Amino acid sequence: MKRYGFTIGLIGSFLLSGVAHYVGAPVFNSTVQFIIAAIAIIFVAGFLGKATESVAHYAGERLGGFLNATFGNAAELIIAIFLVKDGLFEVVKASITGSIIGNMLLVLGLSVLLGGLKYKEQHFNIKLAGHNASLMLLAVIALFVPATFARSFTTHETANLSVIVSVILIVAYLLWLFFSMVTHKNELADEVVEQGEAAWSKGTSILFLVVATAMVAFDSEWLVSTLESFSHQYGLSELFVGAFLIAIVGNAAEHSAAVMMARKNKMGAAVEIAIGSSLQISLFVAPLLVLLSLIFGNTMDLVFSNFEIVAIAVAAFIAKSISQDGSTNWFEGVLLLVVYLILGIAFFLV
Amino acid sequence: MKRYGFTIGLIGSFLLSGVAHYVGAPVFNSTVQFIIAAIAIIFVAGFLGKATESVAHYAGERLGGFLNATFGNAAELIIAIFLVKDGLFEVVKASITGSIIGNMLLVLGLSVLLGGLKYKEQHFNIKLAGHNASLMLLAVIALFVPATFARSFTTHETANLSVIVSVILIVAYLLWLFFSMVTHKNELADEVVEQGEAAWSKGTSILFLVVATAMVAFDSEWLVSTLESFSHQYGLSELFVGAFLIAIVGNAAEHSAAVMMARKNKMGAAVEIAIGSSLQISLFVAPLLVLLSLIFGNTMDLVFSNFEIVAIAVAAFIAKSISQDGSTNWFEGVLLLVVYLILGIAFFLV
Amino acid sequence: MKRYGFTIGLIGSFLLSGVAHYVGAPVFNSTVQFIIAAIAIIFVAGFLGKATESVAHYAGERLGGFLNATFGNAAELIIAIFLVKDGLFEVVKASITGSIIGNMLLVLGLSVLLGGLKYKEQHFNIKLAGHNASLMLLAVIALFVPATFARSFTTHETANLSVIVSVILIVAYLLWLFFSMVTHKNELADEVVEQGEAAWSKGTSILFLVVATAMVAFDSEWLVSTLESFSHQYGLSELFVGAFLIAIVGNAAEHSAAVMMARKNKMGAAVEIAIGSSLQISLFVAPLLVLLSLIFGNTMDLVFSNFEIVAIAVAAFIAKSISQDGSTNWFEGVLLLVVYLILGIAFFLV
Repeated sequence: MKRYGFTIGLIGSFLLSGVAHYVGAPVFNSTVQFIIAAIAIIFVAGFLGKATESVAHYAGERLGGFLNATFGNAAELIIAIFLVKDGLFEVVKASITGSIIGNMLLVLGLSVLLGGLKYKEQHFNIKLAGHNASLMLLAVIALFVPATFARSFTTHETANLSVIVSVILIVAYLLWLFFSMVTHKNELADEVVEQGEAAWSKGTSILFLVVATAMVAFDSEWLVSTLESFSHQYGLSELFVGAFLIAIVGNAAEHSAAVMMARKNKMGAAVEIAIGSSLQISLFVAPLLVLLSLIFGNTMDLVFSNFEIVAIAVAAFIAKSISQDGSTNWFEGVLLLVVYLILGIAFFLV
Repeated sequence: MKRYGFTIGLIGSFLLSGVAHYVGAPVFNSTVQFIIAAIAIIFVAGFLGKATESVAHYAGERLGGFLNATFGNAAELIIAIFLVKDGLFEVVKASITGSIIGNMLLVLGLSVLLGGLKYKEQHFNIKLAGHNASLMLLAVIALFVPATFARSFTTHETANLSVIVSVILIVAYLLWLFFSMVTHKNELADEVVEQGEAAWSKGTSILFLVVATAMVAFDSEWLVSTLESFSHQYGLSELFVGAFLIAIVGNAAEHSAAVMMARKNKMGAAVEIAIGSSLQISLFVAPLLVLLSLIFGNTMDLVFSNFEIVAIAVAAFIAKSISQDGSTNWFEGVLLLVVYLILGIAFFLV
Repeated sequence: MKRYGFTIGLIGSFLLSGVAHYVGAPVFNSTVQFIIAAIAIIFVAGFLGKATESVAHYAGERLGGFLNATFGNAAELIIAIFLVKDGLFEVVKASITGSIIGNMLLVLGLSVLLGGLKYKEQHFNIKLAGHNASLMLLAVIALFVPATFARSFTTHETANLSVIVSVILIVAYLLWLFFSMVTHKNELADEVVEQGEAAWSKGTSILFLVVATAMVAFDSEWLVSTLESFSHQYGLSELFVGAFLIAIVGNAAEHSAAVMMARKNKMGAAVEIAIGSSLQISLFVAPLLVLLSLIFGNTMDLVFSNFEIVAIAVAAFIAKSISQDGSTNWFEGVLLLVVYLILGIAFFLV
């Protein structure tokens, strides 16, 4: 009974949101579009969380988390490619920054806080935590070094450095996948994989994961398009909108899935979604965009603004400090959210 | 017999120091005032250490350490409020900086060194160490973000950011107290609470802790007032005097108590006094002063100078690196003191 | 049979390289000199690795590693003294930087990678890892503080700060030796010392270690002298040549010995050679050069360039993050090498 109601709400709100987006004003003004899209995203995010959980049941916590993170970032990658093609590099960098800190601070923080309100202490594989920390540091280094050296470089040298560093990061990320999924898979797995009930069969679960991610992707875009008219209306800066509003909506998939995993005491999956997604963006999506820009004939460099580098470095350090013992509690969630709040206010005031 | 001698020395030197302060020159010149106040502070610090130990006997190492740190900072808070009222923001910030690095490097360093000369290895709760490290990082972030963004802000925006960040830090600190004293009290307690003998009953111990802290507070102020005439005489900068001389004298309470705890192998209490006091200043006292300045009508911002931020960040990182394994030895004390010495010389030369 | 062939190759190539160096052009042009010296260095590095291993057999992994690191740095110290005497401070600082990051990233990275391809996971004493991390942080602080404060200092004040900090660092390093070799020797030893066969007796092993180090030292210098004409020919900057080419060749001793140790699963010795050598350079060799420059009448300061400080800080942070759990695997080797590569490219483009 409950399931039928959910299915109707899911499909109904999604279709209505799409109609509202394409018909547009004057039938659906941006406020109405926003409300419909927001309701729809609650339904599709719920669907996605369920699908992720079911895939994690068959594939293990980490692989389930990885698939969730990847599908979530695929949507963001597609949007970013169009922005790169149009040469809107600053917007792309702002949204990359927002996505990294949104995952490391907001998604992880909410998961840790809400999981921690239910369980006194939650655990995940400590070796994975250590490797995540080292990879986060690599991501910070890969942004910090070009920004430092670019001050004494020509535009051409900066572009060269960015392209070479991008290739190196992508190779490193692929080696990390090979390491964590093949050669040291068992060492990085969560110790106890609780066998809960699965909602669907293995094949259906994966299909639903793909479908749910696609629905989130479309609905996110519809919501983002209304946000822009909102931000102009309220005089918000492009940096703030790109790094916070769009990132929050764009990470709805990671949000709902990670929180749901944390509430089921599957902290390994929640961490993989949040941190794993951040790492994927900084070590794979961002460098890939640099290489694609090369093909489009106008190279995007890896030189982020001081504000962006500070935000990413701060997020990486606090996430590293909190996750490195392989256990979390509600107060650590508070700490992550507090840092997100401080950064958000600073960016809002810029 | 020994106890009577101590009591006479304590009361006598304290009263004489007060008389010397209020009568002043020409009866007591500043050199004589300084010597009397210094002798008195040795006695009252000894008394305070004894009272802290006795309270810790009844309340546990951490709570005893927390009470010591709080009473110690209460005195500093009162002095700072008067400075804020007079608009002497730079002096306040210098003394906040000095107090943070003094506790994290000098108090902790001396405790670890002197404790380590007696015991080969000393231990304290590793979970507490991890949380302390994350909170120290939050403190650094809370100073670093306003300083970075303030460069492109108007004075008004900087004041706004400072006030909002201050409110967030105070809320975070109160949640930390709730977390560490209520919801996760047992997880953060030291594993073995050695039941030594208590010098006094529970009520007397707390009373003496309050009395001893008040005596230290008064005597510190008397000593500080002589230091100022000294510093003018020897041509020392305001920054150096505020960040080092005043901080060393002002932290006499934490000093004596922490070292005494370390020598009795109660490292948990020593760490709580040193690190806990630093955290209280950066996450509670400093933001509270910003909010109070708002009431006085002239907002103090949270923008510290580059030198101050570097000093605090450096202190936090080395203290984090040394304390995060939950065990200490004499060489780690040397490392903390070495960093304090380097910073002290750099500030002296500015 | 194999051993005789090696001995002939070792002595023959070394002597030929010496002859080529002193006879020089037109009989031996720089390309021929380079090839002969490179062949010789492979032989002498192999000899040194064997001698280190044999000493480690008698003295334990750590002491063996320490002796290797010290003999290796002795050669670099001698070369640097001549440069300091000639007032070539920038070249000295570049080669100090290169030696520190070369050991922490390239030598450690190769050891961890090549050891990790043979063993799934390699372990070393976790307490040693923690102390190494704290000492690395001290090294970064000792470079960072003078550089930050020097901006508002006169040349004279900067020189004073550099000399005082140098004395402090040397004292700290000597106390570290006393701590790790005397008072806490057992706590820092590797848990299992595998008793392999020793190639030679104890006395012969130490003699061969000294002889092999001297041979490496000479041959490195011969190789370095050819590198300089190379670098002019290919238009490489002094910074890149000093920080990368010379450092790679100059650390040949550490390289071969550390990798050999890693391949024999003696990770404790490999880490001691790589990290221990870096620490010795930053906490002992560099400050000693400052003090020696004082004697020569023209004080070298401790103010490194922004690029150099970023490189050293980045290297220290990633090495700390990777080594602090006391275990390594092939991917962690990749991470270290990736960071070295990024820095190398950035310095090459400057």
